[in-house]
Amino acid sequence: MSKRIPTVLLTGFAPFGGEDENPSWDAVRALDGDTIEGHRVVARRLPVEFGASLSALRQALDELEPALVICVGQAGGRAQISLERVAINVDDARIADNAGAQPIDEPVCGDGPAAYFSDLPIKAMLAALREAGFPVEISQTAGTFVCNHVFYGLMHALRNVPQVRGGFVHIPYAPAQAARHPGAPSLPPTVVTQALRLAVAVALTVDHDVRLAAGTTH
Amino acid sequence: MSKRIPTVLLTGFAPFGGEDENPSWDAVRALDGDTIEGHRVVARRLPVEFGASLSALRQALDELEPALVICVGQAGGRAQISLERVAINVDDARIADNAGAQPIDEPVCGDGPAAYFSDLPIKAMLAALREAGFPVEISQTAGTFVCNHVFYGLMHALRNVPQVRGGFVHIPYAPAQAARHPGAPSLPPTVVTQALRLAVAVALTVDHDVRLAAGTTH
Amino acid sequence: MSKRIPTVLLTGFAPFGGEDENPSWDAVRALDGDTIEGHRVVARRLPVEFGASLSALRQALDELEPALVICVGQAGGRAQISLERVAINVDDARIADNAGAQPIDEPVCGDGPAAYFSDLPIKAMLAALREAGFPVEISQTAGTFVCNHVFYGLMHALRNVPQVRGGFVHIPYAPAQAARHPGAPSLPPTVVTQALRLAVAVALTVDHDVRLAAGTTH
Amino acid sequence: MSKRIPTVLLTGFAPFGGEDENPSWDAVRALDGDTIEGHRVVARRLPVEFGASLSALRQALDELEPALVICVGQAGGRAQISLERVAINVDDARIADNAGAQPIDEPVCGDGPAAYFSDLPIKAMLAALREAGFPVEISQTAGTFVCNHVFYGLMHALRNVPQVRGGFVHIPYAPAQAARHPGAPSLPPTVVTQALRLAVAVALTVDHDVRLAAGTTH
Repeated sequence: MSKRIPTVLLTGFAPFGGEDENPSWDAVRALDGDTIEGHRVVARRLPVEFGASLSALRQALDELEPALVICVGQAGGRAQISLERVAINVDDARIADNAGAQPIDEPVCGDGPAAYFSDLPIKAMLAALREAGFPVEISQTAGTFVCNHVFYGLMHALRNVPQVRGGFVHIPYAPAQAARHPGAPSLPPTVVTQALRLAVAVALTVDHDVRLAAGTTH
Repeated sequence: MSKRIPTVLLTGFAPFGGEDENPSWDAVRALDGDTIEGHRVVARRLPVEFGASLSALRQALDELEPALVICVGQAGGRAQISLERVAINVDDARIADNAGAQPIDEPVCGDGPAAYFSDLPIKAMLAALREAGFPVEISQTAGTFVCNHVFYGLMHALRNVPQVRGGFVHIPYAPAQAARHPGAPSLPPTVVTQALRLAVAVALTVDHDVRLAAGTTH
Repeated sequence: MSKRIPTVLLTGFAPFGGEDENPSWDAVRALDGDTIEGHRVVARRLPVEFGASLSALRQALDELEPALVICVGQAGGRAQISLERVAINVDDARIADNAGAQPIDEPVCGDGPAAYFSDLPIKAMLAALREAGFPVEISQTAGTFVCNHVFYGLMHALRNVPQVRGGFVHIPYAPAQAARHPGAPSLPPTVVTQALRLAVAVALTVDHDVRLAAGTTH
Repeated sequence: MSKRIPTVLLTGFAPFGGEDENPSWDAVRALDGDTIEGHRVVARRLPVEFGASLSALRQALDELEPALVICVGQAGGRAQISLERVAINVDDARIADNAGAQPIDEPVCGDGPAAYFSDLPIKAMLAALREAGFPVEISQTAGTFVCNHVFYGLMHALRNVPQVRGGFVHIPYAPAQAARHPGAPSLPPTVVTQALRLAVAVALTVDHDVRLAAGTTH
């Protein structure tokens, strides 16, 4: 009778907004099948669509019963890897998603609270990643597009499952994308993959988050 | 027997972070005693202190029983007037407040939900202010310092008072402050005062907010 | 036999790039006819056209024989008033000018040197303007569009006229423009007018510039 | 009788400004000894000192008699590799150099012109690097610190040597540096090394630069 190896689910997204790649998928797929702290990593790609992204995520949660879930998304224009603190219950799409939908000021979940905080020990992750030389920051907003939608939906799905930790990480453009966006910062997905490997290890081993100021005055 | 004129409470803050002025107070004090859409404006200055700021706010709410409350704060480094969408239940102070306190990852209200959305018709305000030529935007985060603390505490205080609308507006440095911060944007408090007058008028007259995309992809 | 009052020439530009106003013209026209330090201010509006802008400037120089010339231009996206240090001998237009011309890597003056430094006491102006509460900075580049074209052409015209000082100042969008450019900083032209009045006074009264570090590491 | 292999000189800098590494040196040293388009690459590290940096550079020029010289420097805060267009004849140090000197508004060369343009085919380099997926841009200013000092001194040294091309490239922080500068963009030196290899190849093979708009309006 074999004991099942516990699983970590990492998700990336399909390309959107006119891009032909999404570094979030490139970064997480490179960890698919790896073992981190005794957990097997499974990577899944989510569509950039309100609704369908969450259906795909929920299906993966049911199928894999992961111990940890980190969803990763592209934040074109941001300079550092950002550990998201909070997901809010609103869809407000500046551009249409990949299925053509553009919800404005609609709740992600009609019966959900205004927000969920990340379950991840984001301050311990911040400290460990910086110490290891990765450019990383805490972010107070995941926006109001499909990334926040997935983040909120994830935390809503996990609201009664305290033994499973979930959270969201935003990453910069890949260099090849920034080559088409004058002035935009970038980070190679290979660097992001290394950072995520460490982030997963911290999330699996740190029970209580550390006390470390990383807020903003506004 | 005279009927009391309904009141609008506008709050600004004391200087903090080494500044000798706070444009939020300069901007709102100029409206003190004015009448907007049949309401008398009362301006109050709050201390930049966790706890004490909320005590002062609650006292003003009890005393004035305002129909509308807009708290205004300085966001040094931001370029436009920002209408805040959401307050989150966390204090995470990068710098100490004016009383020397620096809470890290503590809740604003131990028994409160993760977040409250603004009661203000922020999209209608956005449209009206832009139409009138004011540089204004929707913001998805009010930070984690005293501004967010006051915003969250305000919405918590109003959570069972549906007839009173509350919200928060962040404003740029005044030009004289930016003169000491190389490269920082600014806006004269006199311009902010005009913008706030219009913002109050919209908040007093628009029942249902308009549908207008003003989110961010991240 | 009357002695002629010496003149200061201030130029602004016509709107360009899809804007329907140009704050540089709004700011300088408000000083037209004023007297500053015994000099009469004359304001002129230049077209946003390679070539024609310089013809108009040279005509004004011939006609007015000013003691001081400050050309002012809009720098949409910059947050502070910038005192330009240097004009370079190249036109490289990212967008077409108002006459449809888009020169790429052509010299402003075929027989001119690679660059001219401003004649203005920019460090003394920086110090005085900051002291007076205006957000101001030194800029190391005036770009490669019509503003730099006029700045270079001005300094070329004055190269053998040591008694006449010339220079260039870039200013932010007006607030009403920034209302149409999400996230862009702005400054009211009325504030710019006050700053220019002081800048002219300093340029007319300071013989030797002060020593004040205001460079950039890159 | 052996014919000497022609040489390409690449320079990087020592750490400065409190950093313990300088990605410009990490990026160029990796190419030392390589052959690109029939040329042998020699990498040299320059001190971050006014004067001494130029002495070291001139000594390398005398010793190596290179066919091409590209000096590379760190531009902390910039997001993309920037191909510098112009060097100006001024030292204006915001911080002291590594020897404690802080010149303000002094010429690099007392007898030199106001500026020199780069000899490199920067537009052809821009096109080739972007096509290859590197985030790269044209910059109109190399600042007023040691980088501009070296760039100006290089072009001054080469002013009568038309067969030798010289120029300057600024690069972002390395990720490990950005880990200590919240919000700062970065690019791994390994990526910069690949980009420089291609940049050198273009500079060695393109005789006449291409026509490609890459200026700024201000």
